[in-house]
Amino acid sequence: MGKVYLVGAGPGAPDLLTLRAARLLEAADVVLHDALVHPDTLALAKGARLVDVGKRYGRVSTEQRFIHRVLVHAARHHEVVVRLKGGDPMLFGRAQEELDALAEAGIEAEVVPGVTAALAAASSLRVSLTRRGLARSVAFLTPRVGRGESGSDWVAAAMGADSIALYMAAGAAPAIAQSLLEAGKPAATPVALVESATLAEERVTYTSLAELRDIALAPAAGPVVMLLGDVLREAAARASGDDSESLSLIA
Amino acid sequence: MGKVYLVGAGPGAPDLLTLRAARLLEAADVVLHDALVHPDTLALAKGARLVDVGKRYGRVSTEQRFIHRVLVHAARHHEVVVRLKGGDPMLFGRAQEELDALAEAGIEAEVVPGVTAALAAASSLRVSLTRRGLARSVAFLTPRVGRGESGSDWVAAAMGADSIALYMAAGAAPAIAQSLLEAGKPAATPVALVESATLAEERVTYTSLAELRDIALAPAAGPVVMLLGDVLREAAARASGDDSESLSLIA
Repeated sequence: MGKVYLVGAGPGAPDLLTLRAARLLEAADVVLHDALVHPDTLALAKGARLVDVGKRYGRVSTEQRFIHRVLVHAARHHEVVVRLKGGDPMLFGRAQEELDALAEAGIEAEVVPGVTAALAAASSLRVSLTRRGLARSVAFLTPRVGRGESGSDWVAAAMGADSIALYMAAGAAPAIAQSLLEAGKPAATPVALVESATLAEERVTYTSLAELRDIALAPAAGPVVMLLGDVLREAAARASGDDSESLSLIA
Repeated sequence: MGKVYLVGAGPGAPDLLTLRAARLLEAADVVLHDALVHPDTLALAKGARLVDVGKRYGRVSTEQRFIHRVLVHAARHHEVVVRLKGGDPMLFGRAQEELDALAEAGIEAEVVPGVTAALAAASSLRVSLTRRGLARSVAFLTPRVGRGESGSDWVAAAMGADSIALYMAAGAAPAIAQSLLEAGKPAATPVALVESATLAEERVTYTSLAELRDIALAPAAGPVVMLLGDVLREAAARASGDDSESLSLIA
């Protein structure tokens, strides 16, 4: 019987992988990976069979139950099985379903945390999501509705926090902005959209909540993290004179 | 003129450092580090002068302004200056003050994200902080009051979110529990206290919000992350039969 490691691949750049994750990939017999993991990261798994079980927005996804079956099967036939997930496994990774399936099959599992996309985006912007006297709470959330979830229960989390990091949100940006404005978030609240954070093709757009409701975003080529809050004000002001930074994601 | 890298050292275990952070430490001329960075992590900085500018809870801290002065001075005399911070620099790291001081002095700065303590704690517990149909928002916050901040503005952030990760909170655990109970958080809400997450001396205690108000916690030897929310229910139930897990932090 093997062991399954649920491993965070980090936000994108291959060198933002942890040392532990790199060693596990080198030792892996099988790697089940998300769609957006960098090829250089996968290349670390020299001795492993690579299985792409990735979900891509708007494309046919691998069924979660199929992933569970492949994980269990791999652990029964190999020693080191790595389930490689973008960012951190414990945030928007559906890791619990996989951990539960493994526990049910009696297979040992371990989780290796990773750098999550929103913190990597904040690093790219050089904007701390917390700041003394201005922000001491950050909500990480997704407005994306899954089965058994209601459409708007994310708004309370967003309204309560000083800074907000939204995952899987760019596709519905105008509706999200409308919901936050209706809930009372100020129209001038600064917003940063960071596409493909930490990769060479990273693109940043600063806007405001009011503008976000009305603009059409260009289709994103990579994952987009949306950051909101007063902590972004100076960075947004600095970028406002620079079209390449402030407009690159606007269609 | 040198460059300053604000680098996340991750949650504790030396191999939860990123590859980029490891390479920067190897190349560093000077490393200014927090108190709780692991000795094996510091040992990577073979060619560097190490300066401990750490803040320790309850002890005399290095003045933030002194850190700024040392950073600017180091960048004026060396090529690669690493400011190594526990966890991720952009979350509860006072990084903005340091970035602003460097910008004011005309010194180039770059931020390297890291694994933040709460996600590492969730990995240790094998509990995903988000789960389909149960939790799609997580608030990261600190109830610790800094200058210019009010005592209770963190409660709204906590109440709005499905899962909560509290930093620098264990010292005031009963008062925090009382505030959340008064705000209407259910008494049975599961709580996990994770001390020294990812290190050999890691200790985990599961409790409930009502119990947390009344128990006395043993003095913590390392940093404690407090996780709250229904996502913890099964893990708390599993641990309830196991005294070593469920009671280790209770005095």
